[in-house]
Amino acid sequence: MKKVVLSGIKPTGIAHIGNYFGALKPAVEMANNNEYECYYFIADYHALNYIKNSKELQENTKALVCTLLAIGMDAKNIVLYKQSDVPEVTELNWILSNVTPKGLLNRAHAYKAKVEEATVNGQDPDALVNMGLYNYPVLMAADILMVNSNFVPVGQDQKQHVEMARDIAGYFNKTYGANFVVPKEIISKDLGTIAGTDGRKMSKSYNNTIPLFAPEDKLKKLIMSIKTDSSLPTEPKPLDSAVMNLFKLFATAKEYETEKAKYENGLSWAEAKTDLFNMMNNYLSPMREKYNYYMENYAEAEKILARGAKKVQAVARETLQRTRIAVGID
Amino acid sequence: MKKVVLSGIKPTGIAHIGNYFGALKPAVEMANNNEYECYYFIADYHALNYIKNSKELQENTKALVCTLLAIGMDAKNIVLYKQSDVPEVTELNWILSNVTPKGLLNRAHAYKAKVEEATVNGQDPDALVNMGLYNYPVLMAADILMVNSNFVPVGQDQKQHVEMARDIAGYFNKTYGANFVVPKEIISKDLGTIAGTDGRKMSKSYNNTIPLFAPEDKLKKLIMSIKTDSSLPTEPKPLDSAVMNLFKLFATAKEYETEKAKYENGLSWAEAKTDLFNMMNNYLSPMREKYNYYMENYAEAEKILARGAKKVQAVARETLQRTRIAVGID
Repeated sequence: MKKVVLSGIKPTGIAHIGNYFGALKPAVEMANNNEYECYYFIADYHALNYIKNSKELQENTKALVCTLLAIGMDAKNIVLYKQSDVPEVTELNWILSNVTPKGLLNRAHAYKAKVEEATVNGQDPDALVNMGLYNYPVLMAADILMVNSNFVPVGQDQKQHVEMARDIAGYFNKTYGANFVVPKEIISKDLGTIAGTDGRKMSKSYNNTIPLFAPEDKLKKLIMSIKTDSSLPTEPKPLDSAVMNLFKLFATAKEYETEKAKYENGLSWAEAKTDLFNMMNNYLSPMREKYNYYMENYAEAEKILARGAKKVQAVARETLQRTRIAVGID
Repeated sequence: MKKVVLSGIKPTGIAHIGNYFGALKPAVEMANNNEYECYYFIADYHALNYIKNSKELQENTKALVCTLLAIGMDAKNIVLYKQSDVPEVTELNWILSNVTPKGLLNRAHAYKAKVEEATVNGQDPDALVNMGLYNYPVLMAADILMVNSNFVPVGQDQKQHVEMARDIAGYFNKTYGANFVVPKEIISKDLGTIAGTDGRKMSKSYNNTIPLFAPEDKLKKLIMSIKTDSSLPTEPKPLDSAVMNLFKLFATAKEYETEKAKYENGLSWAEAKTDLFNMMNNYLSPMREKYNYYMENYAEAEKILARGAKKVQAVARETLQRTRIAVGID
């Protein structure tokens, strides 16, 4: 039997180039790996903790679904679904709560960061925390255990969530007998920093992002606005510049070598940026087209989601029934 | 439209005389009050925090269901259901978590009692707390808000739970617009202490209870074992004795006056206990018979529960759909 891999993403905004290389592209690679049975979900229950506006959440969800389909997350091997299409996960969340010591959640990084922030401000330690944030690791454990995940790919900073899911599975199995597959993390490769238009790390909070599916003219404008040094057009250009940092992400090894030679021999920033734009635009155009298609024909995207929901619901119901019997409520 | 009243009870063990007069009899009176639309549930999701053994929970649930039917909780006006037959409540619990400040739950009496207990023992404050206990007020708010409750009858010690449900409804309505009926508590009459066989308050923890449906011979034996003073058989007997305390609960005003005269004129404890036994046995026999019937024909009880589940599910789905739309996940 194939090993099960689960991953998810929060619909918190329009995806940018940093999101693509950091999270989305690795997910597509996982989905195309025939070794695994792959589940991937849009974490809209989790997003309720960040987005308190129904329109914003709906729009973000739509954009994310179309993004995922555009980049190829409708692969054969993958069950793509919206978390809120499987309310079974919230029942599992409740059942797991009863075997989860509060002390475990007190150690969660995201919670501790909020406590520290409040404490520094002289506020009550819990002033910035709601129960969605605090319970987050239990719902995530439910996400993971519900589909019998063997592996969960995460960045180093998310490792703790999988550890907690493993702990919670262990508490349950110890109390009621073997019931859950105990999951392991797969730590994603660290890509290093992906540069934004101002040279700093690309991040919404710096307002320096390049949206993944920006229209061609906007993409060009954003690339042309990337901060550069004031060297002369004929002078060599540094390879650790933001422009080259982005170019390298999209280029093959050969394309990179060619461009590198141009940088070393000297070219104008305008030319370097034009090279980057052409490279990016060629890479992104087919995906952007697919994205725009699904945005305009969202009913088709919803059909794909409904298929995924049906598949994951079958697994979720099986897990839940087994678990309900184990605890004595079925 | 009739006002909605909700109440629930945890399946934590065999019901005794104290439970009957303190919680069960008031519930039957509420169920027979035509003014209200009445929901009553067996809180088995809540019980997961207390009972970590599937057989024990199943047996307790069965005994409680039969007890409820025996005392008349199958009245026409009432929707009787098992909490775990309405998993929708766990989804509502998750949604509500995201508008519930952690600080609110830090003030819950049950949580604070556990923290104090641990602190006195020199343990970590959260050593005795699991997330089922800590999240309890949010799930209870979901129970209450799910059926659009106007009133929740509670003892003075449970008042805080309704206050918290009211707070949580308020947070949600303020964030997303009016969505939930804001519930109010109805504080139950204080019956004073109900005496156990040792004269102290009847309580499982004192091991002095008289089970509500003890077989006749066991009931007699328990009554005969009630602690009394060493007065002579011809001497007057105190009206504040455990025997009279119990007698008064079952007697009409007239029956009480007659017995009171006997106490004042003097009677033996054996006679007083025999009077108590006859009074209790007459009162309890028809209910005990019904209880035994359902225990032996549990499939019939399950049919009644299934009818209740169907009714409450319809209301729950309506509330949830409205709420999902309000937050943007539907």
